[in-house]
Amino acid sequence: MAKTGSNLSAVLQGANDLRMIDVPIPEPEYGEVQLRQLNCGICGTDVHTWKQAGFGGKALTEPTVLGHESSSVVTKVGEGVTHLKVGDRVATEPGPACYQCKKCKAGRYNLCPVMQVINPQYVSGLSRYAKHRADLCYKLPDNISDEEGAVIEPLAVAVYACKRANIGMGDTVLICGSGSIGLLCLVTVLARGATRVLVTDIGDDKLKVAKKVGATHTLNVRGLSPTEAAAAIEEVLGEPADVSMECTGVPSCVSTAIYATTRGGNVTMVGMGDLVQEVPLGTAAMKEVDIRGVLRYCHDDFTTAVSLVASGKVNVKPLITHRFPLEKSLAALQTTASGVAVKVMVRCAED
Amino acid sequence: MAKTGSNLSAVLQGANDLRMIDVPIPEPEYGEVQLRQLNCGICGTDVHTWKQAGFGGKALTEPTVLGHESSSVVTKVGEGVTHLKVGDRVATEPGPACYQCKKCKAGRYNLCPVMQVINPQYVSGLSRYAKHRADLCYKLPDNISDEEGAVIEPLAVAVYACKRANIGMGDTVLICGSGSIGLLCLVTVLARGATRVLVTDIGDDKLKVAKKVGATHTLNVRGLSPTEAAAAIEEVLGEPADVSMECTGVPSCVSTAIYATTRGGNVTMVGMGDLVQEVPLGTAAMKEVDIRGVLRYCHDDFTTAVSLVASGKVNVKPLITHRFPLEKSLAALQTTASGVAVKVMVRCAED
Amino acid sequence: MAKTGSNLSAVLQGANDLRMIDVPIPEPEYGEVQLRQLNCGICGTDVHTWKQAGFGGKALTEPTVLGHESSSVVTKVGEGVTHLKVGDRVATEPGPACYQCKKCKAGRYNLCPVMQVINPQYVSGLSRYAKHRADLCYKLPDNISDEEGAVIEPLAVAVYACKRANIGMGDTVLICGSGSIGLLCLVTVLARGATRVLVTDIGDDKLKVAKKVGATHTLNVRGLSPTEAAAAIEEVLGEPADVSMECTGVPSCVSTAIYATTRGGNVTMVGMGDLVQEVPLGTAAMKEVDIRGVLRYCHDDFTTAVSLVASGKVNVKPLITHRFPLEKSLAALQTTASGVAVKVMVRCAED
Amino acid sequence: MAKTGSNLSAVLQGANDLRMIDVPIPEPEYGEVQLRQLNCGICGTDVHTWKQAGFGGKALTEPTVLGHESSSVVTKVGEGVTHLKVGDRVATEPGPACYQCKKCKAGRYNLCPVMQVINPQYVSGLSRYAKHRADLCYKLPDNISDEEGAVIEPLAVAVYACKRANIGMGDTVLICGSGSIGLLCLVTVLARGATRVLVTDIGDDKLKVAKKVGATHTLNVRGLSPTEAAAAIEEVLGEPADVSMECTGVPSCVSTAIYATTRGGNVTMVGMGDLVQEVPLGTAAMKEVDIRGVLRYCHDDFTTAVSLVASGKVNVKPLITHRFPLEKSLAALQTTASGVAVKVMVRCAED
Repeated sequence: MAKTGSNLSAVLQGANDLRMIDVPIPEPEYGEVQLRQLNCGICGTDVHTWKQAGFGGKALTEPTVLGHESSSVVTKVGEGVTHLKVGDRVATEPGPACYQCKKCKAGRYNLCPVMQVINPQYVSGLSRYAKHRADLCYKLPDNISDEEGAVIEPLAVAVYACKRANIGMGDTVLICGSGSIGLLCLVTVLARGATRVLVTDIGDDKLKVAKKVGATHTLNVRGLSPTEAAAAIEEVLGEPADVSMECTGVPSCVSTAIYATTRGGNVTMVGMGDLVQEVPLGTAAMKEVDIRGVLRYCHDDFTTAVSLVASGKVNVKPLITHRFPLEKSLAALQTTASGVAVKVMVRCAED
Repeated sequence: MAKTGSNLSAVLQGANDLRMIDVPIPEPEYGEVQLRQLNCGICGTDVHTWKQAGFGGKALTEPTVLGHESSSVVTKVGEGVTHLKVGDRVATEPGPACYQCKKCKAGRYNLCPVMQVINPQYVSGLSRYAKHRADLCYKLPDNISDEEGAVIEPLAVAVYACKRANIGMGDTVLICGSGSIGLLCLVTVLARGATRVLVTDIGDDKLKVAKKVGATHTLNVRGLSPTEAAAAIEEVLGEPADVSMECTGVPSCVSTAIYATTRGGNVTMVGMGDLVQEVPLGTAAMKEVDIRGVLRYCHDDFTTAVSLVASGKVNVKPLITHRFPLEKSLAALQTTASGVAVKVMVRCAED
Repeated sequence: MAKTGSNLSAVLQGANDLRMIDVPIPEPEYGEVQLRQLNCGICGTDVHTWKQAGFGGKALTEPTVLGHESSSVVTKVGEGVTHLKVGDRVATEPGPACYQCKKCKAGRYNLCPVMQVINPQYVSGLSRYAKHRADLCYKLPDNISDEEGAVIEPLAVAVYACKRANIGMGDTVLICGSGSIGLLCLVTVLARGATRVLVTDIGDDKLKVAKKVGATHTLNVRGLSPTEAAAAIEEVLGEPADVSMECTGVPSCVSTAIYATTRGGNVTMVGMGDLVQEVPLGTAAMKEVDIRGVLRYCHDDFTTAVSLVASGKVNVKPLITHRFPLEKSLAALQTTASGVAVKVMVRCAED
Repeated sequence: MAKTGSNLSAVLQGANDLRMIDVPIPEPEYGEVQLRQLNCGICGTDVHTWKQAGFGGKALTEPTVLGHESSSVVTKVGEGVTHLKVGDRVATEPGPACYQCKKCKAGRYNLCPVMQVINPQYVSGLSRYAKHRADLCYKLPDNISDEEGAVIEPLAVAVYACKRANIGMGDTVLICGSGSIGLLCLVTVLARGATRVLVTDIGDDKLKVAKKVGATHTLNVRGLSPTEAAAAIEEVLGEPADVSMECTGVPSCVSTAIYATTRGGNVTMVGMGDLVQEVPLGTAAMKEVDIRGVLRYCHDDFTTAVSLVASGKVNVKPLITHRFPLEKSLAALQTTASGVAVKVMVRCAED
């Protein structure tokens, strides 16, 4: 059991300066809940934020608790909260958006200008306690474990990415990159009814995990040019991909995806890469292969992610390859940064 | 082995007048293939056509071989056919459309005015031999059995219906009717990622089959008014359905579906019923619950259906409850008409 | 100029009991503005509310100022409001929704369960002064008159209805009903690029207005059965309609629209009618003619409506046929109820 | 009147080798019509084909009559043709597609692999006589002139591009490039209800034409970097564009369009440019600005284009800036190549 008043947290003080500090336990305000943290997964953006003291052009302006892939249990309920009670386990959606602007009212709150992930004390995954807006907490049924609950956030990214990619039943899908987001896309496209899914990577170990969680085909593209890789993909599949999900952010993979996708398909860019890239955009245009980006999640993607895990349609357990206690958060970040892991999981709770 | 020149066929001469007759084996013309029939499933429209000597307002004008849910093996290949060879097993799509009119060019060839299912010697499911347009024959991989191959046609209806219904991952779906088309919709919505599916019927035996093939909830609605049924459905689910697929054609079930569907959802009418119906259409309009019809299939629905069975995402075997040899085609129709069966399968081949 | 402290308002006390009363001028709270009312159009729902002391199943629970089609000028600005200043003229969107629930986050805030139009002191069109949420006030450019500003609300309904109907460039459109909402749909489908629009009604005078504001065809359907009317429509047009917008709420017109619409089109129900209707729904299903409802407006429909009037793409002036001062609000309601008017306009300001 | 047997035609023999030759008048086969050519517009691809003896990677393999933007009059009707008669004036759609493959059946026949524009004697715009598939001939009503009829083909490109761009009523649109396709997009987005359209170019004369045909804003971007141009565009408009239509094919303009488009909008690439381009694709992905290509037209775009001109919603006359008789086809190509013209029109008929 946690001692009252103890809130060990992984606080980022600056670039490459993560410290384990005991911070005050936050009290929930109107519409909020207080949370005891259970698990927190480590994301590539956490690594980036840790190393650069910022992300996506936004620099940290104050010490910040890292971590935003959390499962938690409600310990206090603020005023005005009706759908949660003490003891409920939840997955938390980072946010919030303003829900009032033109983008929000149009149903694309992920594009809201005020949406902010890096918000001190607003997600605080790598801590013992935090608080959060209650409407951004999604109840976890009993048959979802704490660790699975901490994978709901990245799974929601894959759910949303599949909507953007418009994956259909019976589709042949190319997934570039067998990292955690590529593999989450893989299990999600399978749950949507895609019947043939080829995953590429430059590491055979990663491709073995892809096979294990359901890829019908894998291909190591190390050393291949984009046109060579596309030709190899089409040869393996016997046809071009209906849709490609690019999960690496590397321009040569974007190029491969454009060449490997059938006329009228799309390349959905799930991985974030260089802002300016040299790619066969003219080729894409002539083939009417649409290029679509993915920014987080929207609508009811968290609810869907919870349903997919609870119903057994998606099994995220094989993706968790490394585990650390909260006290070793730095090691968790280092392991993620090293590239050896699929998903690194931190245990925040003192069991 | 079939004797050369022998083509036993179930020929409909008029209303309630089905005769087993040896008709000439058709020769394939340009773009066609000759087929030795393997299996043929019996559809409700076959029963209707048998009893009324017509369907959907179209009266038969000449003796016609019944049956349009076929698996076959190619025995001769006409000129101009490149994607099939003798020995290939195929599922056959009834048709054809003109592929030239405004509807066809718009990608909705199922709405083509010249589309005609009842076309002597053009589907001829209940026979030893037939011929068919090669572009409407879909190759079956080895891991699909002859019987499964004969379920591809009705499965394609379910595939198309799910597109019309826009079933999404994590959706809560109501399926009205646990007959063959309702159950095919059930296995298909599950393959598309729906996580909660309630099936209704007025027979407990049928609902047991629904449970067996994956329904998360079932409800016997016998004796309930539409508003009572809708209330019971919402109570069981804990929420209204996101989408309803109406597979009975009965106005009280259409009404139930409208009441049981959430604001902004849709009721997709897969079952064909009375042309004029009294239903809560004003309620549907105020809730923005769209009402959508389903006419056969379109695009690549046959290819998708083949992929779903071949990949194991859909298992149609439990739906086949009764079997007859070709010689007993009349008994197959009678069994379907009696309502005791889910899917009645006829073996056309002499094994 | 308005005297300080004077706020003459048309207050509904009960069924058929409208009284002109001087009510307190409301002060704007956080996020709100105080408004001096300029014009207010009368809507069919106002008439219904006046006669029944309620609407759409919701009964009034306290005295309420009628009127929700308003143009106004900002007289005070509450805290937290940045996009408006004193003197700005605005059109007001009734509301608000919660912007937090599943429907709101999905971009369909018009389906939000807490959305409430009948809200004392929240729209208050027929008054001298009111207050309103600032984010629901849309600034009017100088080239939009006060009266045109009061038509923005019903025009937003037509804008949204055209989105639901998915009107395309070059479409042939049937509009059932030449009342104010039918005519607003007419001018809006023309602005969207529909090239052939047939308007039906049972009054020749109304059809003359339709011709005047741009209908390419009109047809008086008095005495015709739905199939007769549909045949006459197709004869006049030379083809069935691509899309039909039903603006009467009368079941025989819904039936006509279903019969008169091409396979694969849709019938969009803009007019509200009986909750239960007997219509050829089976016919619609077999033709894949979707039936879609329309509940108010959503997203940026108000902004679009303002742009359409400001750019001259839509001219709503010919629709205003009768005018009354605020003091004669009862006469304005009676004139609307009589059916002789297209749009009745009340001048709320003391000029 | 044309002399029987005389069929003067502009025949491309090789790169830069266009000759005026009297070729045989073709006889219509089954499903075809013989056409006397009225007018033919010159397209940038004609210039490219003339200079390179090929286009889009396809080299000419035999002498070919240039020109594919035609209006014609039917002079003979082949067997099986029912919707046309001698004397009908038509616009012709180049083609045909196969209408049988997966792309065609999916309603995207413009992506059909066998679609071929460069097909000797199949379009033959710059000639006295030609033949064509009757189902690709669209009847022109009397109020469309011969010259307007010859603009239907490029207008159909704009119609299709606007569908791909999903232009909505009230949208703010950026059009890059004030050449003939940019201006056709301009008049088409206005007909679809866009209310604010900014056209960019590097020539003031071209921008004057844009103003004349309805641009609400124009901007000369000569010398500006993409980020500078985007900032200038946003300053002029007061907001970013909802949608951008890129009609130049120049990478710096594609970049400008990406920077100038709002989150969640799209950049539709109408102009064909280099196959590989360096553009801010990562920026586009993070903003969820989709990149979409445009290949010709599809569905009923020709019918829509005819309706738009016939109804007066689109006026293409001001775009025709230069005129030549058939004998001077070379001069027509040279004038188009020089860049001084918007649309060069050739008169094929001997009047």
